[in-house]
Amino acid sequence: MTRDFGFTLHKTDGKARLGTVHTGRGDIRTPAFMPVGTVGTVKGLYLDQVKETGADIILGNTYHLMLRPGAEQVAKLGGLHSFIRWDGPILTDSGGFQIMSLSKIRKIREEGATFQSHIDGRRYELSPERAMEIQRLLGSDIQMQLDQCIEFPHTDKQAVKAMELSLRWAERSRKAFGSQPGRGNFGIVQGGTNETLRLKSAAGLVDIGFEGYAIGGLAVGEGQALMLSTIDFTAPALPADKPRYLMGVGTPDDILEAVARGVDMFDCVLPTRSGRHGQAFTRFGKVNIRNAKHANDLRPLDEEHPCPALSKYSRAYLHHLIRSGEMLGMMLMSWANIAYYQSLMQGIRAAIAEGRFEDFRRQTKEQWRAGESAA
Amino acid sequence: MTRDFGFTLHKTDGKARLGTVHTGRGDIRTPAFMPVGTVGTVKGLYLDQVKETGADIILGNTYHLMLRPGAEQVAKLGGLHSFIRWDGPILTDSGGFQIMSLSKIRKIREEGATFQSHIDGRRYELSPERAMEIQRLLGSDIQMQLDQCIEFPHTDKQAVKAMELSLRWAERSRKAFGSQPGRGNFGIVQGGTNETLRLKSAAGLVDIGFEGYAIGGLAVGEGQALMLSTIDFTAPALPADKPRYLMGVGTPDDILEAVARGVDMFDCVLPTRSGRHGQAFTRFGKVNIRNAKHANDLRPLDEEHPCPALSKYSRAYLHHLIRSGEMLGMMLMSWANIAYYQSLMQGIRAAIAEGRFEDFRRQTKEQWRAGESAA
Repeated sequence: MTRDFGFTLHKTDGKARLGTVHTGRGDIRTPAFMPVGTVGTVKGLYLDQVKETGADIILGNTYHLMLRPGAEQVAKLGGLHSFIRWDGPILTDSGGFQIMSLSKIRKIREEGATFQSHIDGRRYELSPERAMEIQRLLGSDIQMQLDQCIEFPHTDKQAVKAMELSLRWAERSRKAFGSQPGRGNFGIVQGGTNETLRLKSAAGLVDIGFEGYAIGGLAVGEGQALMLSTIDFTAPALPADKPRYLMGVGTPDDILEAVARGVDMFDCVLPTRSGRHGQAFTRFGKVNIRNAKHANDLRPLDEEHPCPALSKYSRAYLHHLIRSGEMLGMMLMSWANIAYYQSLMQGIRAAIAEGRFEDFRRQTKEQWRAGESAA
Repeated sequence: MTRDFGFTLHKTDGKARLGTVHTGRGDIRTPAFMPVGTVGTVKGLYLDQVKETGADIILGNTYHLMLRPGAEQVAKLGGLHSFIRWDGPILTDSGGFQIMSLSKIRKIREEGATFQSHIDGRRYELSPERAMEIQRLLGSDIQMQLDQCIEFPHTDKQAVKAMELSLRWAERSRKAFGSQPGRGNFGIVQGGTNETLRLKSAAGLVDIGFEGYAIGGLAVGEGQALMLSTIDFTAPALPADKPRYLMGVGTPDDILEAVARGVDMFDCVLPTRSGRHGQAFTRFGKVNIRNAKHANDLRPLDEEHPCPALSKYSRAYLHHLIRSGEMLGMMLMSWANIAYYQSLMQGIRAAIAEGRFEDFRRQTKEQWRAGESAA
């Protein structure tokens, strides 16, 4: 028997929330960071490693997977979970963001989006109904509505238009989602950084009714201050008994600040992308391992961390590997970052559970600022 | 107390030999395949994975490591073993082959080689003495003499000259090696495909006296037939009580044929390099995973193999990952190949131990030819 999809809010500490998202494929402890498995792989990691770092859920990109290998193809092969060998929950986005950021030529109509693949220029159409069909074919546990993302900066007129279209698409997406036991369908709040638009979008989505609500259209260049002020007025407009997901965010600091504002779920390519380029996120702050000062440093990135990538490999070796363009360097740095992010989430959850989130937030930020001298 | 370096020949079966190379850092079961850890990493693999596939020893490239991070730097960081986190034996080549194949401008004099780095054009000098010093600084367990490699095809005159120079360098290398308890120094037989030259080279090296003997200058384009005929007359000229190492070889078939001719040790970049490009070596022969026919194939490469890369991931997924240029595809294919090579060596050793090497050789080759239909 498939377990129902649902959300349990265990505790709040200020606005920070400790919860569990229940899915047919297992629970997700929130606040949660979802590593991004773009095209069916979290870049540079074995999924066993991802699991071991403490991730309960990963994300797959509808846009990437519809282009290659294709949704029908994944379905024929038994669904995304079995294809990539991940038995936990998977959230898929709807493709809206990548249509904005990656595809070559795009046209947005009431019916849906038309775009050209960034891989081979082939023409695709993506309606709200097709976006939901693709996610169902993939077998996704949390399926996002199709929305229209707009670039930053934008005019108010653009923001209004995209928000209203996204709301109409939300209704069509919800209808297309239908009934899928154990799975959830999330609506996406749009409206740029404009409070009136965000509140209107949130209210419209709540009227439709979803298993969870995402805040979309942020982390697109508006900067942290604007992002956080937008969350400040958007999060309270979302139902307390449903999970809240801030899409595509962010740095460890962004996450800490968004959790403080009542956000439950996050995803971002930053830990793997930065890792490939030699940047580590650690409890002592950011480390650019390419920097010459690491060439002679026999210390690991964090000797107390349970992840071998952080505690067993010297900075000198990581420096050498990244400088030499070696895969192992990218593998280790990506692994280290995913592990750090997960331990940060674990720390956040423990702090909320014990009612000391504000202390945790302050101490964590102090440690980032102070670096290792304060270790 | 460091154990002495040595070789035990346990058994012969035809010309095939079962043995153990003893080093201060542990034993090497022969016939042995040594994965190549060019610049301090077996490309795309964790060394824990390399160890788990059954590799007793890995190879490091003097040429690459002297350029980056540098031999003195590695020594300062505690030696190659500790730097890369591999506690088993390491064999280092002397740089001769890469000077021939990689460096931009090179000049070979009696004193040594002068060449420009392929990375930044910096000028380096490598004498036999410096090649040995570098290997000692790295902490290598098996250190190769500096030799002069020549391209194929070559004139007899070039082969004579390079062989004689290599012999004089052998003497200087041996002297420079000095006494290093638990470590061995191998001479390298040169002489192209010319029997007289090879025999002269072998005799000269045996006169000097080494802990082991390598056959160099093969697998440079001469083709398998010429390579094997060269081994046919070279191997018997080497002392039976010392290990014999065929440098830079090769395909699984090359290895099987060379073992049949009395060779004990091998190294090659083929399993990792081919893996990165989507070619797998399996007991059913070669598989080009990029081929469209694998897109729908849910079978793993070899469901009976203990390595997860061979037995747990579907061809469809590997096909998708390699086609998408994903690191995980290269990681899995490289891992699968290293694992297959090691299981081939294990099979070879078991067959020799049981006096059925000829049957094993025939059956293995039949299985490669027949593919999976005969599985």
